[in-house]
Amino acid sequence: MTNTTPLPNDLQAQRDAFHAELQDMSIIPLWLNLGAAAQTEPRVEGVPHIWRWRDIKPMMLRGGALISPQEAERRVLMLINPSFDRKSARTVGMIFGGIQFLMPGETADSHRHSPNAHRFIIEGEGAYTAVEGERTIMRKGDYVTTPAWKWHDHGNDSGQPMAWLDGLDLPFVNLLDANFFEDRAEGDSPQQPIYRQAEDSLHRWGRGMRPTWKEPARTDLSPLLNYRWETCRANLHALRDEVGSPFDGIIMEYTNPLTGRSPLPTISAYLQLLRKGEHTRAHRHTSSTIYHVAEGAGGSLIGGQEYLWEEGDTFVIPSWVAHEHWSTGGEAVLFSYSDRPILKAFGLFREAFAGQEG
Amino acid sequence: MTNTTPLPNDLQAQRDAFHAELQDMSIIPLWLNLGAAAQTEPRVEGVPHIWRWRDIKPMMLRGGALISPQEAERRVLMLINPSFDRKSARTVGMIFGGIQFLMPGETADSHRHSPNAHRFIIEGEGAYTAVEGERTIMRKGDYVTTPAWKWHDHGNDSGQPMAWLDGLDLPFVNLLDANFFEDRAEGDSPQQPIYRQAEDSLHRWGRGMRPTWKEPARTDLSPLLNYRWETCRANLHALRDEVGSPFDGIIMEYTNPLTGRSPLPTISAYLQLLRKGEHTRAHRHTSSTIYHVAEGAGGSLIGGQEYLWEEGDTFVIPSWVAHEHWSTGGEAVLFSYSDRPILKAFGLFREAFAGQEG
Amino acid sequence: MTNTTPLPNDLQAQRDAFHAELQDMSIIPLWLNLGAAAQTEPRVEGVPHIWRWRDIKPMMLRGGALISPQEAERRVLMLINPSFDRKSARTVGMIFGGIQFLMPGETADSHRHSPNAHRFIIEGEGAYTAVEGERTIMRKGDYVTTPAWKWHDHGNDSGQPMAWLDGLDLPFVNLLDANFFEDRAEGDSPQQPIYRQAEDSLHRWGRGMRPTWKEPARTDLSPLLNYRWETCRANLHALRDEVGSPFDGIIMEYTNPLTGRSPLPTISAYLQLLRKGEHTRAHRHTSSTIYHVAEGAGGSLIGGQEYLWEEGDTFVIPSWVAHEHWSTGGEAVLFSYSDRPILKAFGLFREAFAGQEG
Amino acid sequence: MTNTTPLPNDLQAQRDAFHAELQDMSIIPLWLNLGAAAQTEPRVEGVPHIWRWRDIKPMMLRGGALISPQEAERRVLMLINPSFDRKSARTVGMIFGGIQFLMPGETADSHRHSPNAHRFIIEGEGAYTAVEGERTIMRKGDYVTTPAWKWHDHGNDSGQPMAWLDGLDLPFVNLLDANFFEDRAEGDSPQQPIYRQAEDSLHRWGRGMRPTWKEPARTDLSPLLNYRWETCRANLHALRDEVGSPFDGIIMEYTNPLTGRSPLPTISAYLQLLRKGEHTRAHRHTSSTIYHVAEGAGGSLIGGQEYLWEEGDTFVIPSWVAHEHWSTGGEAVLFSYSDRPILKAFGLFREAFAGQEG
Ligand SMILES: [Fe+2]
Ligand SMILES: [Fe+2]
Ligand SMILES: [Fe+2]
Ligand SMILES: [Fe+2]
Ligand SMILES: [Fe+2]
Ligand SMILES: [Fe+2]
Ligand SMILES: [Fe+2]
Ligand SMILES: [Fe+2]
Repeated sequence: MTNTTPLPNDLQAQRDAFHAELQDMSIIPLWLNLGAAAQTEPRVEGVPHIWRWRDIKPMMLRGGALISPQEAERRVLMLINPSFDRKSARTVGMIFGGIQFLMPGETADSHRHSPNAHRFIIEGEGAYTAVEGERTIMRKGDYVTTPAWKWHDHGNDSGQPMAWLDGLDLPFVNLLDANFFEDRAEGDSPQQPIYRQAEDSLHRWGRGMRPTWKEPARTDLSPLLNYRWETCRANLHALRDEVGSPFDGIIMEYTNPLTGRSPLPTISAYLQLLRKGEHTRAHRHTSSTIYHVAEGAGGSLIGGQEYLWEEGDTFVIPSWVAHEHWSTGGEAVLFSYSDRPILKAFGLFREAFAGQEG
Repeated sequence: MTNTTPLPNDLQAQRDAFHAELQDMSIIPLWLNLGAAAQTEPRVEGVPHIWRWRDIKPMMLRGGALISPQEAERRVLMLINPSFDRKSARTVGMIFGGIQFLMPGETADSHRHSPNAHRFIIEGEGAYTAVEGERTIMRKGDYVTTPAWKWHDHGNDSGQPMAWLDGLDLPFVNLLDANFFEDRAEGDSPQQPIYRQAEDSLHRWGRGMRPTWKEPARTDLSPLLNYRWETCRANLHALRDEVGSPFDGIIMEYTNPLTGRSPLPTISAYLQLLRKGEHTRAHRHTSSTIYHVAEGAGGSLIGGQEYLWEEGDTFVIPSWVAHEHWSTGGEAVLFSYSDRPILKAFGLFREAFAGQEG
Repeated sequence: MTNTTPLPNDLQAQRDAFHAELQDMSIIPLWLNLGAAAQTEPRVEGVPHIWRWRDIKPMMLRGGALISPQEAERRVLMLINPSFDRKSARTVGMIFGGIQFLMPGETADSHRHSPNAHRFIIEGEGAYTAVEGERTIMRKGDYVTTPAWKWHDHGNDSGQPMAWLDGLDLPFVNLLDANFFEDRAEGDSPQQPIYRQAEDSLHRWGRGMRPTWKEPARTDLSPLLNYRWETCRANLHALRDEVGSPFDGIIMEYTNPLTGRSPLPTISAYLQLLRKGEHTRAHRHTSSTIYHVAEGAGGSLIGGQEYLWEEGDTFVIPSWVAHEHWSTGGEAVLFSYSDRPILKAFGLFREAFAGQEG
Repeated sequence: MTNTTPLPNDLQAQRDAFHAELQDMSIIPLWLNLGAAAQTEPRVEGVPHIWRWRDIKPMMLRGGALISPQEAERRVLMLINPSFDRKSARTVGMIFGGIQFLMPGETADSHRHSPNAHRFIIEGEGAYTAVEGERTIMRKGDYVTTPAWKWHDHGNDSGQPMAWLDGLDLPFVNLLDANFFEDRAEGDSPQQPIYRQAEDSLHRWGRGMRPTWKEPARTDLSPLLNYRWETCRANLHALRDEVGSPFDGIIMEYTNPLTGRSPLPTISAYLQLLRKGEHTRAHRHTSSTIYHVAEGAGGSLIGGQEYLWEEGDTFVIPSWVAHEHWSTGGEAVLFSYSDRPILKAFGLFREAFAGQEG
């Protein structure tokens, strides 16, 4: 549309009438909407953002005083990307992050849903998650999975409050119009029956072996309930003398032992060590990531803006926004999760970095 | 939140202040937004809708008089679901449908994009699509693929206008923030060079064999350029004495000969024969479908409402809305495409029908 | 064992006694048998060989006079590699080839077996093979599959004798101790009931589509009954202007439309065009191949020895023996099949050619 | 061939001449060899057999006195099935087992081969295996892999002799004519350079995570060097209260963390606990197994014959031979390995048990 000569009034009027009629028919001419179809590069809707633990924690305590457990049902603070509607449940890309608190004596009743979920423990120790007859007592830094449509419940039998970061593919499942939720049946116990020992799934699937007499129904869902902080951190430390990734340092992905792939089909999760003085190279890629600072402090340059972070903070990097990370004053460990498996499943994952092209 | 006793003014005010402060932090308490997270069944945003050929065609002719080819660039009428924003490019679910007209002598220059595309020919004969050095002359009823990131161009060397239904996974790729588009380089010919004979890909991949000396780079993209109407219709007729699907009659899915799966990784496409007097059983499922009437007439009951259709019409059925089909006055053939591969990739596909449960 | 000094008689005697005792225990010291374990390159047991049609055909006619159909049960001449025992059923590598004649009026009763089988028609026209309720009338050059454990039967209702090359993975299945065979039940008809039309499987699976309401039980077995000579030859001719494979000319592999892989899980089959004057480069690989001359004449240099061939001849090239091919006096078409899928399944396939190394 | 009337001398003579001529042509009539092709059930060549540790160990000590390390190169006693030729290297089915001794100060120089190998430690502690720059100090009960074509070497720096059971797919690779072997290059150190810490592969791949910056070249080969006895035994004990497999008790398969499948593509390996008083049900299947008694004592009924076993013994069960196991005087732990992945890869695995059929 290089012709910018004003149209005769008459023609313009006819066009306006024509377009209005089309709109009434739920038809939009491509020539009025080319941008929606043809984009040189993605127009990313989400923006980078950081939520600081020092801000969140006091709000949650205040919430505890203002809202009773019965009213809250679950004390989750949903982290919603500033550029999205609250109903979208989008923290960034296709994933959701929320901070959940569980006070001493509180429980979350057994239920299941088609979205996949996991949690990364921020503070406290002693609450449990139960899935498929096994209960795991959670501790700071643990990565705990509750895959799609598996019954799960939580409870805090300890004397201290616990806080964790909930991760879900909720925006994705909502956009696909495929979100189902089921509460325990009338009369069932609020907590599922426990018929497995502690660490059962670890021995059953996570230690280099598998029982042969019972296959899991779905292999794309990790059968491991808890990826322990001490183990995962030790893995990172064992590889600390490697060069590692130029973009991420010593970064390891949590894996599903049934397939070697991500624990949840839609969400990949990572733990990464930024060594003392390490500053990674910038890159960008078509996947969106939620980061949580598990240990130490540092900063990230995201889309040209600097974000400094410390233990407990949560921040997001949208698709195709350039980013680099560094540690400050020693080592730092970042937990992160991403919608990358969705993009990879369809050949939509791209990565670029300076010096790569040209 | 069963307690509906009015709160003391004071407490309500404190809560309001608290929630407002949270909102300023881009935090939404789950207790104010439970619906976004926990849904017994999907809350489907899209609605059923039908676009009639007898309405569309005259509008396009009118458009031809009002908008010059240079202004239009491409004469596509985007079918946008009445419940979605025009910028969403969503016809239903994760897929887009648009009616494209190509007048005698018109061309669409070579370009490529990360969304996958296909077209189903509605009217006319003689225009071509070119992909990877092969040109196919298209005819009514052909199903033609232009998979992700492959250069393609169109042109109408015939003396008659052509119309087709464009199908893309555009909403999905947009939502994933992964939409890339590339125009031919400055100085390149608007049409790609043709170095393969007509029907090359058919002989190369589509007739029970494959050349061994050159593997396609991506096996999830169909190497077949054109699935011919006569062949596909003959397939349906060959199976016409089968019972077929209770929900769809004699329904066949187009396949990628490299994998036996859908031609495009995100979109499955179908051709189905509703025999004289056939009326299918109702079912519903978590995938969204765009239907196009290729031959004959009939009707569909969608979410309790009847939609009568005839050749050339296009209609949509959103996820989890019950539907049944019938032919009227003889046989009917429906072409359709769906976002089902996306749901299946992550275990999110569900189907239900009366009598199944209970 | 570089020490070749003769041992004291005494020590040698002690060793001999020791080794004899071990042998009685079914134990062999590795130091007496190093060759069985450590080989720089494969010690291939089979040898190249050619069976000429002009020799085979008269023998079969002679057999017809000497052995009644009742005595013969099936008139198959097993082509056994000169270096293998007849009980091995090994023509070369893990595959078997045999020439089967079916005289007018003769039948082969319905049966099934765990070995996979196919046939390539050498002469005649009009006999049928039936699999899963479909009968195909076979013609010269057709490639017909009867996959593992599927009921099949043959019959010659035509007035002329037919001959074909049977291919099976019989040596492989025998070596794996997994060969099962089942005859039709007492009282069942010798021919299976036919409930599908001619060319049913072609329309159902082989023309770019698949019915959605019924999945085959095993996707690793081709559902296509007959890959027709005219179609397959036309495929080759459509690609004749390509450079093709330096080692094989215009070579195409038959494919299973459910997976894009070989029609039978253990046997890959090929049709290749050697153009007028074409002489391929030498290479060798760890897979064994049975060739049959479908059209024309030419020659092959196999392990340094020249084998000239003409229509109807069958010859074999064992694993890791260098080979090159040429046509003589015009074009030639070779049908071949190989145990390559077995080697590929476990990363055991290797290929080498002059100029590749160093 | 029901007609047993003697043939006229003349006809018999003609037939004999005919058959002799065919044989000279490397052709065997199927009617003389029906058994090789059509078998109701597998004709298994191998036989059950047991090699007792109390017999093997003294022989090895005697060998140590009679054969110098230089002469022996490697002190391996090949366990060859009584019904196979020594050159076959077949212990049972497609797998090999041999007892290797490594005396204090001895080494096995670095080399690689296309057959896959593993070892299970029988006695001693302190020798090492090195693969890909990592050395593992082996202890009784450890399961150690050296996958296809990976450089490996062994050495015994401890003061005590070590003995282990070597397992290879040597018969299979030999039969496929695909056995390659490479010694370290002239001038290279007999031991490969060690550039990884002890237990590196365990942290890198075996503890629920994987580094993202370096993918293994082949995912079908386990990257884990050593599956430790204490861990594996603990896995069994953690599941001891399960019902387990009716045919095998508490049986777990070693897994490749990259895929969840067998550590080596051709060989699956297992550890199984027979609890006090446990006696398993009989079954049979088309896979061949080598068992080694890791702990305790018991017996097996194999093909109707009883074999009693105790710690250190090795026994074999061929394909399709019925078997059941029991412990005696307490618990027993069996290590075993099998060619089952080969059969499963091609749909040739079958299992049967009493009561299943009819
Ligand atoms: Fe939940
Ligand atoms: Fe990144
Ligand atoms: Fe396009
Ligand atoms: Fe439907
Ligand atoms: Fe057969
Ligand atoms: Fe070759
Ligand atoms: Fe070795
Ligand atoms: Fe068994």
